[in-house]
Amino acid sequence: MKSIKVGLLGLGVVGTGTWRVLSRNIDEIYRRTNRYIEITDIAVRNVDKAYSRIGNKIPISNDAYKLVNDPKIDIIVELIGGNTLDLTLAAISNGKHIVTANKDLLAKHGNEIFLAASKHGVIVGFEAAVCGGVPIIKAMRESLTANRIQWLAGIVNGTTNFILSEMRSRTLPFLEVLCEAQRLGYAESDPTFDIEGIDSANKATLLSALAFGIPLQFEKVHIEGISNLAQEDILYAEKLGYRIKLLAITKRVYNGIEIRVHPALIPINHLLSNVEGAMNAVIVHGDIVGSTIYYGQGAGAQPTASSVVADLVDIVRLYSANPLHCIPHLGFQSNSLSDLKILPIEKISTSYYLRLSVEDLPGVLADVALVLASSSISINSMFQEPSINKCSDIIFLTHKSIEENINLAIKNIESLRFVRSKVTRLRMENLV
Amino acid sequence: MKSIKVGLLGLGVVGTGTWRVLSRNIDEIYRRTNRYIEITDIAVRNVDKAYSRIGNKIPISNDAYKLVNDPKIDIIVELIGGNTLDLTLAAISNGKHIVTANKDLLAKHGNEIFLAASKHGVIVGFEAAVCGGVPIIKAMRESLTANRIQWLAGIVNGTTNFILSEMRSRTLPFLEVLCEAQRLGYAESDPTFDIEGIDSANKATLLSALAFGIPLQFEKVHIEGISNLAQEDILYAEKLGYRIKLLAITKRVYNGIEIRVHPALIPINHLLSNVEGAMNAVIVHGDIVGSTIYYGQGAGAQPTASSVVADLVDIVRLYSANPLHCIPHLGFQSNSLSDLKILPIEKISTSYYLRLSVEDLPGVLADVALVLASSSISINSMFQEPSINKCSDIIFLTHKSIEENINLAIKNIESLRFVRSKVTRLRMENLV
Repeated sequence: MKSIKVGLLGLGVVGTGTWRVLSRNIDEIYRRTNRYIEITDIAVRNVDKAYSRIGNKIPISNDAYKLVNDPKIDIIVELIGGNTLDLTLAAISNGKHIVTANKDLLAKHGNEIFLAASKHGVIVGFEAAVCGGVPIIKAMRESLTANRIQWLAGIVNGTTNFILSEMRSRTLPFLEVLCEAQRLGYAESDPTFDIEGIDSANKATLLSALAFGIPLQFEKVHIEGISNLAQEDILYAEKLGYRIKLLAITKRVYNGIEIRVHPALIPINHLLSNVEGAMNAVIVHGDIVGSTIYYGQGAGAQPTASSVVADLVDIVRLYSANPLHCIPHLGFQSNSLSDLKILPIEKISTSYYLRLSVEDLPGVLADVALVLASSSISINSMFQEPSINKCSDIIFLTHKSIEENINLAIKNIESLRFVRSKVTRLRMENLV
Repeated sequence: MKSIKVGLLGLGVVGTGTWRVLSRNIDEIYRRTNRYIEITDIAVRNVDKAYSRIGNKIPISNDAYKLVNDPKIDIIVELIGGNTLDLTLAAISNGKHIVTANKDLLAKHGNEIFLAASKHGVIVGFEAAVCGGVPIIKAMRESLTANRIQWLAGIVNGTTNFILSEMRSRTLPFLEVLCEAQRLGYAESDPTFDIEGIDSANKATLLSALAFGIPLQFEKVHIEGISNLAQEDILYAEKLGYRIKLLAITKRVYNGIEIRVHPALIPINHLLSNVEGAMNAVIVHGDIVGSTIYYGQGAGAQPTASSVVADLVDIVRLYSANPLHCIPHLGFQSNSLSDLKILPIEKISTSYYLRLSVEDLPGVLADVALVLASSSISINSMFQEPSINKCSDIIFLTHKSIEENINLAIKNIESLRFVRSKVTRLRMENLV
């Protein structure tokens, strides 16, 4: 059978990784597919650099549209990043299957892209867009189909998890670890996308759509990163039996769907607490299967290429099949997507960690407790540090409360005259 | 589109679970498939009991062949267990797709079953046969296709993991915990299949075939269970920074393939060490993706039904597709299976934990060390308990050694005159 011809856009870290994997494991992959997968053309920004990287066995141009419009090419692998919407839509309308790691593109334009793909009967594979080598897309789309998914929570960004691991284990402040992560290549020179939670929010957008069969709604994700996270909260959390992780969370609740990215305290003995360094893990909770966890390297040339090639193999197997036999892009038939309401952050309900600094005077605790009670917030536990200079840190862990009540309580606590700091508020998740 | 008609064989724990899941989540599943999955007929041993369990909406007979030969039925779900080879082959030759949780059948007769299925162009789904609700079959068959799998190790039997967890956390001996597990329903009244490692060996057989593209070879799996495991070794292991788990292991090494089931010491801070109670987890190491882990409930009505229904959904999607578009049963094309040699246990290479009881005399340690050295066994660390009644436990942790060398050394150590016990030998796995 003739080989499947792939046009590769981009020869950065993942592009080069993909090229290498397809060369190195060509025989093992052929044993699976009975058909060779061949990169026949590559388009990049800097042609000379690309030739120097992989030699001159394959023609390399700087014209991505040449590949997209080439009738000989069966599949376009898009590993350029950035806004490739027009290019992607052009490839689709030319009847080419797509494999992409572009989470940013899909989170923002996925609805349009998947619609176009369905119309033209092509597949858009995006396993590589979420958690690198961890096969979470396929698990959610194909393995948990018996379930009504109830919630999921994931460590889906390696950069921030590396930073948080180092801040904790080496008791270092955020900025110092960030610089080190940049030196080691774990963080970009402009780290905003990772540390402010935007990358995680892209993934949360995709995962929530896959979990509940809802359209992609990046603009409704609540996003907080880790750049404001104080090292002392990591240490206090540890003392109290918790670890702080940047989580992507999506939940089905009685009045809608929550989608949120923020640092959260999770129990120290939970498996997710022990996901360290640049590793990723996602816990998915279905009504039938209970909790399942998927763990692995969430970034890097090879792990991400592993997912790119898995998508290629899927496409090869379904190549020329009736689109009816293909899996819908979000796991649900496109005419079955729900318009479940995405809740604003004020309406979510979870437990909270509140830290404040107070003067060490009689009656202080009673006053704060009264404010919490008047906002219907019930205290689960409390912890007070020995006072230094007549000032003391108090930490409250609350039972489940509605966020707008917490906001009101914080405002009222901050207006108490003996309270000497802003209240630090972190959310807690028990993940069971 | 007309519904897909399923004949269900067996209405035990998993059969009833499957029936309930399909009723309960019918709408969510329809959103995915655009086609209803309908159980139209059930066959069981005890018809009255079955009617009392699920009511009389569906005809229930005690004639499985009636369903297998019924032209209206599209898919047979086999949840009877035991030797159902003839029944399964009959269903296949009638052109029916199969979904089965029968690991025992597949480990022993899978080669024949998959061959027949390929010949008749039908799918045999068996996600439910390994690790209940954990989607490990699909991950290995479809998600890691870019990789040459190098090894995998899994906690694939909940009963034994529950027993080991309790033995450790509550410092109880094996038999006491086994009785409790039987009372709680975690262990069968005849627990042999689980505690002697046979169930794990069935799964190891399937996983090794999926990992390396080799035929199913149950008879070549080395099997040791946990019934001889002494509680003191669990405690010593803990002291030394290890936890003992019953592992199913398969590895590609330079001279063949290892497939083995036995208790093993693994580092206490490894994620697999923290898989407790009846949970299952498998770590799969590919040359490209590195290590990925899959975790969840490995048994029980609902988790297993989750996998049964996932297979049903896969079949519905590919129903009437050209078999070329289907995934080969073992992930590799049937004409591409390798005849890699399965190594006998004497030829494997790993690290070892050796415990012996010796008289507390000068020169004892030197003599034992000499025996080890003369078998080319290098000691990684050593630990001696304070002596009681002039007798003392010594534990050696070795570097990687070949098992036949260890066997010889053990024989020689046991013949030393001051050695007062058989040598307890456990294998160690670092899982990186």
